[in-house]
Amino acid sequence: MKTHRRLIAAIIGSARASSDEEGTAAALGEELVDAGFRVLTGGLGGVMQAASRGARRAARYQSGDVIGILPSYDASHANEFVDIPICTGLNHGRNLVVVASADVVLAVGGQSGTLSEIALAWQLGKPVIAVGAGDGWGRRLAGVAIDDRRSDRVHGPLPPAEAVELAVRLVAERGPAPKVFP
Amino acid sequence: MKTHRRLIAAIIGSARASSDEEGTAAALGEELVDAGFRVLTGGLGGVMQAASRGARRAARYQSGDVIGILPSYDASHANEFVDIPICTGLNHGRNLVVVASADVVLAVGGQSGTLSEIALAWQLGKPVIAVGAGDGWGRRLAGVAIDDRRSDRVHGPLPPAEAVELAVRLVAERGPAPKVFP
Amino acid sequence: MKTHRRLIAAIIGSARASSDEEGTAAALGEELVDAGFRVLTGGLGGVMQAASRGARRAARYQSGDVIGILPSYDASHANEFVDIPICTGLNHGRNLVVVASADVVLAVGGQSGTLSEIALAWQLGKPVIAVGAGDGWGRRLAGVAIDDRRSDRVHGPLPPAEAVELAVRLVAERGPAPKVFP
Amino acid sequence: MKTHRRLIAAIIGSARASSDEEGTAAALGEELVDAGFRVLTGGLGGVMQAASRGARRAARYQSGDVIGILPSYDASHANEFVDIPICTGLNHGRNLVVVASADVVLAVGGQSGTLSEIALAWQLGKPVIAVGAGDGWGRRLAGVAIDDRRSDRVHGPLPPAEAVELAVRLVAERGPAPKVFP
Repeated sequence: MKTHRRLIAAIIGSARASSDEEGTAAALGEELVDAGFRVLTGGLGGVMQAASRGARRAARYQSGDVIGILPSYDASHANEFVDIPICTGLNHGRNLVVVASADVVLAVGGQSGTLSEIALAWQLGKPVIAVGAGDGWGRRLAGVAIDDRRSDRVHGPLPPAEAVELAVRLVAERGPAPKVFP
Repeated sequence: MKTHRRLIAAIIGSARASSDEEGTAAALGEELVDAGFRVLTGGLGGVMQAASRGARRAARYQSGDVIGILPSYDASHANEFVDIPICTGLNHGRNLVVVASADVVLAVGGQSGTLSEIALAWQLGKPVIAVGAGDGWGRRLAGVAIDDRRSDRVHGPLPPAEAVELAVRLVAERGPAPKVFP
Repeated sequence: MKTHRRLIAAIIGSARASSDEEGTAAALGEELVDAGFRVLTGGLGGVMQAASRGARRAARYQSGDVIGILPSYDASHANEFVDIPICTGLNHGRNLVVVASADVVLAVGGQSGTLSEIALAWQLGKPVIAVGAGDGWGRRLAGVAIDDRRSDRVHGPLPPAEAVELAVRLVAERGPAPKVFP
Repeated sequence: MKTHRRLIAAIIGSARASSDEEGTAAALGEELVDAGFRVLTGGLGGVMQAASRGARRAARYQSGDVIGILPSYDASHANEFVDIPICTGLNHGRNLVVVASADVVLAVGGQSGTLSEIALAWQLGKPVIAVGAGDGWGRRLAGVAIDDRRSDRVHGPLPPAEAVELAVRLVAERGPAPKVFP
């Protein structure tokens, strides 16, 4: 049964996002769900909210596909598109739970919080893909090897549809068996 | 849309459980899902596994209803009935995330880990219900007010079906509006 | 050099303490420092503040002997007797850091937070001693084996001076070598 | 009394450090203690160990000046120069406690873990100074504003002595009153 666990894609990015970034995040959320992923974010506004909104409008969306990892103990802090609010009470420490719970991490725009998440995702061995335009940390680190512990680089920058194709390919390559799509 | 978020019931109990406790946990998981809850546990064996297994066999079960909050960063540590593994890397600290993410907490049996979770649930204002027989901490604290910050007590001990009825009633009473069943 | 690390005693208890409990905590802090321990608390008021105050007035006190593990990111939340504020941002999760960092745990009074700390200390294999009078969770669990994973029990209840004698004996017994007094 | 709390400087950098980086870290630890700071690190090897070793040999060193924030629950994982091991059990999550507990953060070299710490320090409003030569993330971000929430930049790169002078100046500027040297 383990082999049928749906994979999780984290979309990371700022609560203070441009409308371009929000559009990118929404497209990404939608296409990730249609590609078979659940979508996980930090559960609040900006990129997180747009990604959750996009996921909800996907053709293949079903309840339970949108997860929000909150900094507080208060589930009502989650944006209205989150199906499953996880209340950590960890403040900024929840960022680590976001990337640790993901099979692949996609960054839209990005300020200091996103930079820390990209670095943490790298440490934890997660594939990282920068998505969209703009000058956030995702894009600035695209093509960069954060350190020499891994042989790959931060992928992208790519538009949403191509980023999702790459995400599908990267998680398929990594195995192990339990991480195959249903 | 917020008003339609499905509620989350945490089932807590030991990884080293008796077959009685596992039977209770499985019945509880099944009935909670059939009552409309998602089921959340610490994601590992014993009571956690039995509760997740029970949830999966519920008539109303759908993918996404079984959440596991793991102590490590490794999703493959989740038992095979978990749909959504959340990887915290917090070790014992994940117990706090378990109860903080729940709308209601149900304890089956219980050793020191469960005792800490009952105390934390109390601190966070969550209703706590002891379920089943045996001499674990759930049952030992049933009827007890852990401290004077709350006017209620640890509920139970009750058999699974009655515990679920009580859980439904308690979450309905608490409101607020966003916490009403779909 | 490792063998000369000073041992750490955690004093746990409520921020809302009676004057009796505060007196006990202050006596305990003072005697623990004079017995060679550093004193570590949750850094806030009530029992935590009284324990820190007592530690400061010990004859053998030197700067660095009083550590406070704070729930927030704000060092100014520490009571005025804390030498070293550790800012966790973990909210209630900091309680686990308190007991995990201790060589021995002493409980004065105690409500739900203290109950969770005693349970966590037990899980982590730390000796636990209930100190003083009153009806808090320390005293209620004195003489109790929290579960069957350990062969000892919660010690006490004892008055401060005897509790410190017991603490010295318990840490001496446990070894290993790095845990011996300088 | 609060006004006399000694300030804390965090030295961050990799467990896998070059001998140049270790030399820099040791010089930094020594000069920070002689400037009146306590030194706090992640408590393990490489830069963390060298910084702790340097702090111990400072003329003004006294027991309690070297703090190590450990990822595990095991105090014996601390390097032999740590006076006060704080056992978090948070794994990589301890990095956030390191920077949150510091009044100023100094980065030597730096791989992905250090990059995440610099980003987190920025989020928490801590001054960040890159120290020494080499091509780690401290130096790569020197002169960079991580995002627009702050008006300053990552300082440096500077040699140890000048970095400590700057650290003294930055913490003096920031106030508030409780953060003044004894």
